[in-house]
Amino acid sequence: MLKEVESLTEQSSSLDSGRISSVALVKKALAKAKENAHLNAFVSLDGENILSQAKASDSRRKLGQALSPVDGIPIAIKDNYLTKDYPTTACSNAAPLEPSNIDATIVKNLRNAGAIIFGKTNMDEWAFSPTNINSNIGATRNPHNPEHITCGSSGGSAAAVAAGIVSAAMGSDTGGSIRMPSAACGIYGFKPSYGRASRHGVLPLSWSLDAPGPLASSLDDIAMLLPYILGRDDKDVSTFRSRPFKKNACTKQINAVYLTGERLERSEEVDNVLRTKLNESLVSVVDAELSHVKNYYAAWEAIIFSEAASYHQKLLQVNAEGFSHRLRAKLEAGLQLTAVELLHAQKLRSRLMHTLMHDYGDWDVLVLPTLPVPAPKHSDEWLEFGGRKVNVPESMLWFCFLGNLTGFPCVTIPVAKSESGMPIGMMLMGRPGKDETLLSIAMELEKNIQGAN
Amino acid sequence: MLKEVESLTEQSSSLDSGRISSVALVKKALAKAKENAHLNAFVSLDGENILSQAKASDSRRKLGQALSPVDGIPIAIKDNYLTKDYPTTACSNAAPLEPSNIDATIVKNLRNAGAIIFGKTNMDEWAFSPTNINSNIGATRNPHNPEHITCGSSGGSAAAVAAGIVSAAMGSDTGGSIRMPSAACGIYGFKPSYGRASRHGVLPLSWSLDAPGPLASSLDDIAMLLPYILGRDDKDVSTFRSRPFKKNACTKQINAVYLTGERLERSEEVDNVLRTKLNESLVSVVDAELSHVKNYYAAWEAIIFSEAASYHQKLLQVNAEGFSHRLRAKLEAGLQLTAVELLHAQKLRSRLMHTLMHDYGDWDVLVLPTLPVPAPKHSDEWLEFGGRKVNVPESMLWFCFLGNLTGFPCVTIPVAKSESGMPIGMMLMGRPGKDETLLSIAMELEKNIQGAN
Repeated sequence: MLKEVESLTEQSSSLDSGRISSVALVKKALAKAKENAHLNAFVSLDGENILSQAKASDSRRKLGQALSPVDGIPIAIKDNYLTKDYPTTACSNAAPLEPSNIDATIVKNLRNAGAIIFGKTNMDEWAFSPTNINSNIGATRNPHNPEHITCGSSGGSAAAVAAGIVSAAMGSDTGGSIRMPSAACGIYGFKPSYGRASRHGVLPLSWSLDAPGPLASSLDDIAMLLPYILGRDDKDVSTFRSRPFKKNACTKQINAVYLTGERLERSEEVDNVLRTKLNESLVSVVDAELSHVKNYYAAWEAIIFSEAASYHQKLLQVNAEGFSHRLRAKLEAGLQLTAVELLHAQKLRSRLMHTLMHDYGDWDVLVLPTLPVPAPKHSDEWLEFGGRKVNVPESMLWFCFLGNLTGFPCVTIPVAKSESGMPIGMMLMGRPGKDETLLSIAMELEKNIQGAN
Repeated sequence: MLKEVESLTEQSSSLDSGRISSVALVKKALAKAKENAHLNAFVSLDGENILSQAKASDSRRKLGQALSPVDGIPIAIKDNYLTKDYPTTACSNAAPLEPSNIDATIVKNLRNAGAIIFGKTNMDEWAFSPTNINSNIGATRNPHNPEHITCGSSGGSAAAVAAGIVSAAMGSDTGGSIRMPSAACGIYGFKPSYGRASRHGVLPLSWSLDAPGPLASSLDDIAMLLPYILGRDDKDVSTFRSRPFKKNACTKQINAVYLTGERLERSEEVDNVLRTKLNESLVSVVDAELSHVKNYYAAWEAIIFSEAASYHQKLLQVNAEGFSHRLRAKLEAGLQLTAVELLHAQKLRSRLMHTLMHDYGDWDVLVLPTLPVPAPKHSDEWLEFGGRKVNVPESMLWFCFLGNLTGFPCVTIPVAKSESGMPIGMMLMGRPGKDETLLSIAMELEKNIQGAN
C-alpha cells in the first residue's frame, strides 16, 4: 500500500464510521486537483456535478442506505469511457462518433454502487501511445518529478492517484496502458484477463487486445473495485464466460517464473531490484528464457495497427484532419497491412499463448519488470538499457504488450524507488481467467517485500 | 441406410462372424474399383499394399486379436491426408511441401485400429473448389449418373462410397467439401465441430474453417468411425478441449428450426422434399429467416481466400506454375486482401455465431437443404432456382459454408431422389461441440423418414 496516499479502503472505512462525509471527501479531492493542476491529469472536472453526487451519497448514508463499500468515494475515469455527465473526447480533436449520453458498463456499475464519477482523465490521443505526451490537451506530468513522463495511455488516471487526488481511477490497457503509467507513477494497476471485464462503452483501440481495469493505491483497493469490473455483460460478447469477481485466498506455495531473454532486456538497476524483491517475497522463483519476443512484438503491432485502422476507418473519412499527424500516420499504415500479414500475426499470438501456457511448467505467476527503466524525462527520446538503445515509446511497451497479446491477467505493484527517486514496478502475469488467483498471489508476494512506499 | 451399398456396420459383423475375410473384402473392393474406373474416384490405389494389410488383419483375427470393430475394413482416404504408404498430392501439380512419410493423426488412429488404408481419393486441387472438376487427374463422375458431377472437394471419397467400392471414406470440409459430395452422391457425410477432430497431417485449405470427417453408408457407420476422429490431439492445439466421442441416445423432443431467407433460396422440388421429410420425421419444426447471408458468404470468402493465400505463399514462390490457372488466380486474389477487410470478415463470423446461438430460441438442430438443387451436369455452368441464377460453384456452396463459418457440427443425410433420379440431401446443424447430440438427433429424425435409399 502507498504510504503517502489515502487508500480506497481507508476512505471507505472513514465514510462508514462517520469520520468524514462524501462532500468533505470530494472537496478535499477537488482542492488537491487544483493544487496539482500542473500535472495536467484531468481533461474535464465538474465540481458542481461532483458535489451534487456527494450530497446524494451523504443523504443515502444518513438514512442507512449506503449502496456499497464505494458509495461516496470519488473515482476518476479515463476519457475513453463514455459517461453520461461528461463529454468523451479520447483527448483527440477527431471527436468520437459514439453517442455521448450513455455510461460505459463499468461506469454504470460504479455509479449504481454510489461511487462519485470524478471527472475524466488525460490520456494519449485515442489511447494509441504509451507516453501520455500525445494528448490534445498536452502531456501529463509525473507527480514524483514533473520533469518525467507518467507513461500512458492512462497517464491522467495514474497521476491523479499518485498525487493523492483520488484513491482510484479507471484506465484501459491495449499494450500496457494501465500498467505502464501505474509503474511510472508508483501505484498499482490491474489488467483483467481478456473477456472478464466489459469493454462496452469504452472506446476501442484494438478490440482483441483492449482490457479496461483499475489503477489504485493498494491491492486491497483493487479487490474492492473488481466486483464492479469483472463479470458477464450482455453488451459485450467477449464476457459471456466471465464469472463475477470472487476474492480468494492464496493458500499454496507460489511458483514464480522470472522471464528473461533476447528483447526482454532491462537496466541493471531494475533487474537487481526485481531479483532482490523476489528474494524477499519468499516465493519459489526460477529463471526462464522466452524466445522470439521480437516476432511477438511485431505481431502485437500488426494486430493493434490493423484493428485501430479498421475501427477508425469511418472517422478517417469524415475527419482525417482531426487526428494528430502522428496518429493519422499510424492509422494509415494500418490500412496498408495485408490480410496475410495479419494472419501471420494472429498465428504468432496463438503460439505465444500456447508456449506460455504449456512450456514453463506448473507456474502460478510469470514475473517481469513493468518497465525496463524508471519513467524517462519529457526531453528523452532514446533510452539505453541492457545493451540496447531503444526509442522511448517502444521502451515503455517493452514487456507489457505480452499481457495483451496473450490476454493473460496482469498486475503491477510498486516495489522500490530508483537512485533517481523514480518508482520501479514489478509485473505479475497470471493464467487466463484466473484474475482472482493472480490478485491473491500478488497480495501474498507483497506481504514480505520491504516496500519503497 | 443405403440399400444398395454394404455398410461398415454390416462388414464389421460379417468379419466378426467369419462370414467373410478381410482379404475377400478388399478383393471385392478392388474389383468394384476396377469396374467403376470411369468414375475416376481414386488418384492412387495399391492393390498389393491393400492385400498385405488385409492379410495381417485376417491373421490377427484368427488369433482372436482383432484390434477394433473396423479391423480389416477398407476405408478410402482423401488425397489431402498424409499417409505413410501413399504419396499425397492434393490432386495438384504444385506438389505439397509437407513430409510424405507420416500418417495424419486420423489415418494413424484408423491404422492402429486395424482398418485397411484403401487408396487415396480424387479431389479438387488443394480442396479449393466445390465441384471435383478441378483436379489434375480430371473430374470425378457421379455414380448415380456419370453425366452429373459429384461435387467436391471430397468427390472421390463420395463416389467411392456411393458406388459401393468402400463403405466409408475420409474427407475434409472447409465450405461443405464433405457434405456437398455426400448429398450429391446420396450418402451420409459428417463435418465435426471445429476443434473436435484433429487436422494434424491433413493439408490445410483454410485452417480456421477446415474440419476432417467421414463419408459413409449410414449414420451407424459414422458413429462407428467417430471414435477414431474426435478427441484431443497434442499435435493440433485446436483440439485441446475436445472430448473423445461418446455415443449418446436422443431422449427428448427435438426442436428443429428450418432456415429460409434471402440468399438461402432453393428449388421448389428441394424445398418440398425437405418439408415433406421433416413432416414425416415427427420432429417439432418452426420456420425462421436468417438475414445478411450475402454478407456472411463474403466473410467466408475473405477468410478462405486469405488463409489459403497465407498457407500457399511459400509454394507460390517456388512453384507458381504448378498450380492451375484457376487456383493460382484465387491465391493471388487472397494475397491482395487487406487486414482491415479480413477483420471485417472475422467480425461478421462472430456475429453469425452469436446470432445462431442466441436468436433462434432453444433449438436442437438447424435444418437446411445440403444443396439448393440436385447435383448438376458436368456441362452446366449456371443454375436457376428460387428466382436466382447462380454459377455452379457458388450454387453448391449456397448453404454449407454456414457450418464452417460458425464451426458448428453438421451432418447430411440422403432423404429422397429428384424427378431426374439424382439424390437430395438434408443438412442438420447442431450446437458447437455437441457432435454426439447432433448424430443422435439425426438418427432419431431418420427413423420415421420414408427414405429414397
